[in-house]
Amino acid sequence: MRFKLTLEYDGGPFVGWQRQDNGPSVQAALEAAVERTAGAPAEVVGAGRTDAGVHALGQVAHVDLARDWAPLRLREALNFHLRPAPVAVLAVEAVPPDFHARFSATERRYRYRILNRRAPPVLDRERVWAIARPLDAEAMHRAAQRLVGRHDFSSFRAKLCQAASPVKTLGALAVARAGDEVVVTAAARSFLHHQVRNIVGTLVQVGLGRWPEFQVSAVLDARDRAVAGPTAPAAGLYLIGVGYPSGCRNDDLADGTVEEREPERDEP
Amino acid sequence: MRFKLTLEYDGGPFVGWQRQDNGPSVQAALEAAVERTAGAPAEVVGAGRTDAGVHALGQVAHVDLARDWAPLRLREALNFHLRPAPVAVLAVEAVPPDFHARFSATERRYRYRILNRRAPPVLDRERVWAIARPLDAEAMHRAAQRLVGRHDFSSFRAKLCQAASPVKTLGALAVARAGDEVVVTAAARSFLHHQVRNIVGTLVQVGLGRWPEFQVSAVLDARDRAVAGPTAPAAGLYLIGVGYPSGCRNDDLADGTVEEREPERDEP
Repeated sequence: MRFKLTLEYDGGPFVGWQRQDNGPSVQAALEAAVERTAGAPAEVVGAGRTDAGVHALGQVAHVDLARDWAPLRLREALNFHLRPAPVAVLAVEAVPPDFHARFSATERRYRYRILNRRAPPVLDRERVWAIARPLDAEAMHRAAQRLVGRHDFSSFRAKLCQAASPVKTLGALAVARAGDEVVVTAAARSFLHHQVRNIVGTLVQVGLGRWPEFQVSAVLDARDRAVAGPTAPAAGLYLIGVGYPSGCRNDDLADGTVEEREPERDEP
Repeated sequence: MRFKLTLEYDGGPFVGWQRQDNGPSVQAALEAAVERTAGAPAEVVGAGRTDAGVHALGQVAHVDLARDWAPLRLREALNFHLRPAPVAVLAVEAVPPDFHARFSATERRYRYRILNRRAPPVLDRERVWAIARPLDAEAMHRAAQRLVGRHDFSSFRAKLCQAASPVKTLGALAVARAGDEVVVTAAARSFLHHQVRNIVGTLVQVGLGRWPEFQVSAVLDARDRAVAGPTAPAAGLYLIGVGYPSGCRNDDLADGTVEEREPERDEP
């Protein structure tokens, strides 16, 4: 029996989604809870391999269990056994055996939160990137539109990125101010390693008035990581939802187009 | 020179606003930062004496300094010296010597956040009251209207409350659902000790379907703390703003009437 899990987690204490030797991972926390719940080990496969410190409000994973659990009961049992790890199972759904959290996904949606005020973050510390100098969110949004569509995103790709190709289709990229916050939302079938954070770091250069908007096009065209802005900190990034062809959406953001079809990694 | 400070803080690590012998207080953290900034001790007087664990997004305080500081510079210096305490000075304003953060205040506004879902809180842990069973927010809102106005609030008053009279005028009380959250907002000239949390604990009984809406009127009329609901946890409560006659508002919530005029304590 295959089950789809929708997950929230605080990325702060983890080395990232993926199981690693150097510290606790979200995947390992979930697999430990699955083993305590089901009495046998099982691999938990995630839609997006979020980095150390990156949060999730709507990560999706799947797991195969020998028994046919009632979804609500499985959710309660997993949440019980996850404590005190800051990971919660928001929803459990029984899915057909050909559902694959990573390969079936047709869209990943991310949010990046910037706290843009002089005073340091307090209630949202470790949840935002704090930028004291005023950002021009409208200029950032206009510049962002230069990145939407199918492009070679080599300029926004981490050195360690393992994707076969730097070509990705960015379905939507929006920047909006909400009070003291500047929020960036990005949707694509998949992302290169650090792509969202490198895009945010570049748009911030525009928002600070250091770079003109058209420079974002020049950065994209250069296909050279050295010319883009710095990598924005992990703490501001949230995986907010994953889309699947059946129409299972995991959040209330509904935009972003889907063009590519081949199964791919997601390493934002 | 008197300065008005608008403050955000995480109430979690503090014994409350007020200086106490049994642990760190927000007031003491601010007074230490003032002393390091100005080179001399000075009392920091707050508009509301928030309890242990209660947060603030718009607490107001005043402090008298010997020197005439540029407000922006004073804000930066205080925030520098507050680190790493989770307290931030959002704004500093020079005010006339007759401005008094507590006695001049004509309105306090509070927000109470309930996370209403089966899964435990993760990103908002220690920021909400988690209630797993579904709440009927509309019934809570209707029941809340029975408490608006000038009443004897003895049923919602903590035993330790030091206010001279249990009669208060509740200017506004609203309950609304926003996704997984049920948010209660309350505005009044001042509140009794635990008044907001005891009101929330009572409205939750209605939201869970345990009590009919009219029972809230019966609870109010009884003037007996024993008949009201339990005290809601501190972690969900936020002092979001304080109003003054000059029209200095510290947040975007603009409701609540002002009737009383005598200076009073605020001990929510």
